[in-house]
Parts: sequence; structure tokens; C-alpha cells
Amino acid sequence: PEHFLITLALPAETEVVWVEDFYRGIGDCLDMFGGFLAGGETSGVPSGSAAVISIAATGSVQREHLILRSTARAGDALFVTGTLGGSIHGKHLDFTPRVEAAGWLVRNFKPSAMMDLSDGLGKDLPRLAKASGCGFSIDETAIPVTTGSTVAEAIGDGEDFELLFCLEESRADGLLQAWPFADLPLTRIGRMEEDGKEQALGGGWEHFRS
Amino acid sequence: PEHFLITLALPAETEVVWVEDFYRGIGDCLDMFGGFLAGGETSGVPSGSAAVISIAATGSVQREHLILRSTARAGDALFVTGTLGGSIHGKHLDFTPRVEAAGWLVRNFKPSAMMDLSDGLGKDLPRLAKASGCGFSIDETAIPVTTGSTVAEAIGDGEDFELLFCLEESRADGLLQAWPFADLPLTRIGRMEEDGKEQALGGGWEHFRS
Repeated sequence: PEHFLITLALPAETEVVWVEDFYRGIGDCLDMFGGFLAGGETSGVPSGSAAVISIAATGSVQREHLILRSTARAGDALFVTGTLGGSIHGKHLDFTPRVEAAGWLVRNFKPSAMMDLSDGLGKDLPRLAKASGCGFSIDETAIPVTTGSTVAEAIGDGEDFELLFCLEESRADGLLQAWPFADLPLTRIGRMEEDGKEQALGGGWEHFRS
Repeated sequence: PEHFLITLALPAETEVVWVEDFYRGIGDCLDMFGGFLAGGETSGVPSGSAAVISIAATGSVQREHLILRSTARAGDALFVTGTLGGSIHGKHLDFTPRVEAAGWLVRNFKPSAMMDLSDGLGKDLPRLAKASGCGFSIDETAIPVTTGSTVAEAIGDGEDFELLFCLEESRADGLLQAWPFADLPLTRIGRMEEDGKEQALGGGWEHFRS
């Protein structure tokens, strides 16, 4: 993380203490993960309108540590961190981004492809597969489901922000043994397949669902 | 200009054709000034809420072409491009950013300090002066006022996006003679003074004025 731009569009009835609390939280996050608040914009919206917060961030990565979503290969094992589902119940509002785990993975196992799950496994896995020119197969009974959620919700809720990544099959067991994060589950959920062999997955978050 | 991130927060009643027109305009701007649309986010707001558009952009400048707002010196002549005032009447909605003029200035005269006027001369000039540890004096009768606006509006409307810059006194006449943009007025409006000698200017845009 390098520079952050924060834009607030707030209705007149917004309490100053709310804005102060917001920036205190932003400050805590910058302390934790690094990065600088470089600027942004403030604007009003009509009274009664929703407040809108938009945050843009820049970052950089060493060339040899760059991992794309377009470089998975058929036969790779497919993993997710954490548990999926539950953003409907607010789980995503108290979540630590997987920055540390992603860094460890890149340095120690360099996955063949990786992304975070923002729109749900049901939408994001097909994107990774398409970008890589692969298909995929999932063992739905293996999906790590957040307590209180169903498998369908784990596939469809979105806003998980867990890591989805691919690793060559021969190194999959070694990764599971080496995984050092006791509080963060790591689960093998399937494999990448040849292009055209794509399993149907329900769900995924629609931004403009009304 | 390098990378652009565009975030839209739209109510469900937004017409698709509006979004298409919006991105067509963005595409025209990118064609004109360069830069790539790198991503962003889309989200909904409740029906009846204001639509919010947030655009973040990155850019870079050659080190020797970098001009800050904090490096003006007492005695420098003070210039603005274009005419000021009129955003209340929508002038700023059909405006070409002064990218070409700024580039010419930097290459040919390298101003001692420069910024664009986003909150109005009455707010932005004191900011430039404060950042530079200077005061300023303005000849209000010299301010180039947009037809149909008053001097107070020229100082206070904001959203002018004209260039405000400082140049050492000895080069001021040379600049006025060399200025190559026939359609863009260039006006000397005053000078930078020693710190503490700051003229009162009315107005300037308040983001949260209710």
C-alpha cells in the first residue's frame, strides 16, 4: 500500500463525530498496514440522500512477487482461506484483510494465480478461470462455510475478501503442512480443469440488484 | 495522467443510457489527455438518493518539471489564466482543463509556484501564500471576471479550474509577450508579499455550507 485518496459525499445531517470516528478508523488501518492518506475530496449530497464513501489506493509490488488471476494452469489445486458466507449478517464489517497471509504465500509458495473474493466464489472463480483460459471443478462439500450460513450463501454472498488461489498439484500437500496461520483456515476446494470444463455455481453478488 | 479509477454509486432508477453516455464522455477525455481507465467500483444507493461519482487519478511528472504551491517568493508577480466566476451558472460544466497551457508554462517559464483554482481565488490564493510563507496583494479591478459575474463571484464561486501561478517580477513582461494561447486570457492580478502582509479576500467555496 502506498497512497490513499478518500472521498466523502455526505448529507448535511451527518454528525461531525461520525466523520471524526471514520478518520480515526482510517488512521488505525494505515498504522496497521502502512500507506499514506494523500488526499481526496469532500462534497455534500442533498439531505436524506445516502452518504457515499469512496476510497482509492495505489500500491506497488516487486516484479518477481507479482501474481495475476490469469496465470492458473489446468491441474492446479484450488484453495481458499478463511470461511465463506455471512456478509449478509455483517461478517465483512469486522474483517482483517489477508495482507499477511498473501505475503507469506507469495514468498514461500508463489501461487500460480490468486485474487481476493469480493463478489463471491460463484462469480469470482469463473472470472479467474476465464482469465486463465481454464475450467474448474469444485467439491461443494469441501467449501468452508461460515457458521450460520448455507453453502449457497458461502458461494453467493460476496464480500468475503478471502484469498482464492491456485497452486501446482505437487506442492499442495506441502502447503497444507507448512501453513503457519493457526487462526486462519486453509481449505482445498477443488482444481483447475481444461478450458470448457466449467462447473455451474449458483449465486454471486449483483451490484445493481434492485 | 496515468491511471483512472471511477466509482459510481447510483440509485436503481438511473437509466442505463445515462451510464453509457457518462462512460462515452470519459472515453473522449481519455482520448484527449491520455491515461487509462484502470478500474473502480460500482455500487447502489437507495432509490431517491443522489448519484455519486468519484474519480481518482494517478499521474507523474519529470522531477525538473515539478512545481509546487509552496515555493513562491515575496516579490513574484501573480497571474491567472482565463476568467473567474460563473460556476454558479454552470460555466465549469463545459471547461477544458488547462493541461496544455500548464505544460507550456512549465517548459518555457517555469513558474515559482502554481496550482489550479478549485475553491475560488479567495480561498486558494491564501493557501498558496501560506504554503509558501508569503503574503499577497491583489488589484481587485484587475481580476478577469466572467461576463455576467461580479467581482465577488469571481473571487468566491470556486470551480474555476484556471491556473494561478507566480513568476519572478523580472520575467513577467516577457511572459505576457510570449503567451501563445490567443483564446485564453492571461492576466496579472497582483504580487506576492512578505509573510504577514495578506490582503482580505471575500468568499471561497464551503463544501459543507448548508
